[in-house]
Amino acid sequence: MDKDLKMSNMHTTVGIIGLGLIGGSMAIDLKRRGFAQTVLGVEKDPVSAQAALTIGLVDRVVPYEECIEKADIIVVAVPVGVAVKLVPDILDRFATLSEAEALPGASLRDPVRANAPGSASASDKIVIDVCSTKTQICHAVKYHPRRKQFVGTHPMAGTEYSGPWAAQPGLFDGRACIFADSEESAPQALKTIEGLYATLNMRPVYMNAEQHDVHTAYVSHISQVTSYALALTVLDKEKDEKHIFDLASGGFASTVRLAKSNADMWVPILTQNHDNVLHVIDTYIEKMQEIRDAVSTYDEDKLRELIAEANRIKRILR
Amino acid sequence: MDKDLKMSNMHTTVGIIGLGLIGGSMAIDLKRRGFAQTVLGVEKDPVSAQAALTIGLVDRVVPYEECIEKADIIVVAVPVGVAVKLVPDILDRFATLSEAEALPGASLRDPVRANAPGSASASDKIVIDVCSTKTQICHAVKYHPRRKQFVGTHPMAGTEYSGPWAAQPGLFDGRACIFADSEESAPQALKTIEGLYATLNMRPVYMNAEQHDVHTAYVSHISQVTSYALALTVLDKEKDEKHIFDLASGGFASTVRLAKSNADMWVPILTQNHDNVLHVIDTYIEKMQEIRDAVSTYDEDKLRELIAEANRIKRILR
Repeated sequence: MDKDLKMSNMHTTVGIIGLGLIGGSMAIDLKRRGFAQTVLGVEKDPVSAQAALTIGLVDRVVPYEECIEKADIIVVAVPVGVAVKLVPDILDRFATLSEAEALPGASLRDPVRANAPGSASASDKIVIDVCSTKTQICHAVKYHPRRKQFVGTHPMAGTEYSGPWAAQPGLFDGRACIFADSEESAPQALKTIEGLYATLNMRPVYMNAEQHDVHTAYVSHISQVTSYALALTVLDKEKDEKHIFDLASGGFASTVRLAKSNADMWVPILTQNHDNVLHVIDTYIEKMQEIRDAVSTYDEDKLRELIAEANRIKRILR
Repeated sequence: MDKDLKMSNMHTTVGIIGLGLIGGSMAIDLKRRGFAQTVLGVEKDPVSAQAALTIGLVDRVVPYEECIEKADIIVVAVPVGVAVKLVPDILDRFATLSEAEALPGASLRDPVRANAPGSASASDKIVIDVCSTKTQICHAVKYHPRRKQFVGTHPMAGTEYSGPWAAQPGLFDGRACIFADSEESAPQALKTIEGLYATLNMRPVYMNAEQHDVHTAYVSHISQVTSYALALTVLDKEKDEKHIFDLASGGFASTVRLAKSNADMWVPILTQNHDNVLHVIDTYIEKMQEIRDAVSTYDEDKLRELIAEANRIKRILR
C-alpha cells in the first residue's frame, strides 16, 4: 500500500504555527476538503488565538511544543524573520522526539500517544514553511541532519489584509505554489506536501531557492515596493485626504492596494532578499526616469513606444 | 415650470462622440435610466461603430454634423488631444446653427426639425467633455462666445480596457464626478449636466481646472505612470514569461493592471499635464530612493517607519 495513500487514510493532524491570512486560510480548506482530520493552531498573540477559535479556523489552539509532538505535518506560517529560526528548532525537536521513541519502553511511557491514529513517528513528521523568500530559510537548514523532513514552499496567494480575520476559503485555488530545493526533501515528504497543495488546488512549480528569490523580487517584491512608494507619494503631495478619496478612481485603489500590507511581513522579506530587491528597484527607477524624460521633452513618440511595450503585459496576464 | 424639469420631460437626445469605454458606458445608463430618450453616437472607427450598434449601445450612429444638429446634449468622449480641438469646433457650430435659426423663415426651411420634441434650440444645446485633464480644454474655450454652453467634467471611473466592448452598465455608480470651472457655464446648462451625472449615480465635486490637474496628477496620473514603469521593469528583468505568469500573485496583477491602458488615451494626458506629472514623478522617485536606501543599509527601523506611513492609505481607501 502506497505510503501517502496510507497517510491520507490515517487520521492526519496538521499543526499550523501562525494563524494569520495564510495559516488561517490553509486551516480552513485542509479541514473542509478532508486532508486534515484535526487542525491544531499555535498563535502567540492571544487576541488572534481567541479570534481563530471563535471563527472556527482550528480545532484547538495548543502550545508550540504540543503542536510539534502531536501534528504529523507542521506548517510554519509566520513572518520569514521568525520562520528562519523556527524551522531549524522544529527539526531539532523531531530529532529529540525520535530519540525518545527509540528508548526501550518508550511506548509504555506514553501508551496513548504511541497508539494514536495518525500520530506519525517523529521520523515521518514533516515541517513546511510558506514564506516569500527561500534562500535564507533553505540555507538555515541545509546541513541539518533532519533536512529531509523539511519542504520549503511558497504558495503564491494572498491579499493585503492580515490576521485570522483575513483568512478565507478558496484563497489558494488555481494559483501556483513554488517548491524550493525540493530535491533536498525526502521523496515521501515531498509527495505528501504535493498532496496537501493539490488539496488546495494549487499548481506546483519547482525551482531552487536562489532562483525563487530572484524571480519573486522581479515580479512580486517590486510590486509591493512600488505600491508603498505610491502611497508615500500621494500622502506626501496630497495633504487633503478628501481629495484623495474623491480622486481615487478604481485605478489608484488597485495600484496602491498592496500598500496596506504590514511591516511585520514585508520588512524581513525586503531585507532578506536584499540584493535582488535592490537590483530590481534600480531597474525600476531607470524605467521611471525614461518615462519622466519622455514627458519632460514632450516626446510623444517615445511615450507611445514605452506604453506599447508596457501593454505587452496584457498577453501574459488575463 | 422649471426649465430642467421641462428638459427631463422633453424628448432628450444625447449625442456621444467616441463610443469607447466611457462614452459607451454613459450611453447604456443614460438610456436605461430614462435620462435620454434617444442616444446618437459618432464613431470614426468603422469596426467600433459597427460593434456599438451590434451591442446596442446607441440608437443610431450618425455623422458628426448630424449629431451636433440633432442632439440636445453632446458628450465628447475622445482622447483629450482630440477633445481640445473638437469642443471649440462644436461651440462654433452651435453659433452657426443659432444664426440659421434666427434667419427669417428658418422654421419654414426645416419645418420637421423646428417642431421636433426635444430638439433644443442651438442656444440651449450643451457640450460636455469627460477628459482626464481640464486646464487645456478649459483654456481652449475660455473666450469663446459660446463658452457658457460648455461644461467641463471628469467622471472618475474607468477600467484598463477600451473600446465599445469595454462599456458596461453601472460603471459610474457611486464614484465622484469633477466639474471644472463650473462657474463659467450657464447655470441652466450646469444644472442639466448635474442631472445627467445624478442619473449615473455620481457624486459631484467642484474645483477649478488647474486644481483638478494638480490633484489628478497627484492621485490618478502617478498611479498610471507607476504601473507602466512596473510593467516595463518586469518585462525587462523577467525574460521568461512563464515565470511572470507563475509568480504573478494577485498582488502583481492588481498593481500592474493599469499598464494595460492604451497610449491613445494616456500620451495626451501625460503631456498636457506635463508640469504636474513631472513634479509628482520626482517626488515618487525620491520616495522610491528612500525605500531603496533603507533596504540597502538593512535599516529595518526606517523601513518599518516608511511602511507604517504608507499603511495610512488604509484609513482613506476602503
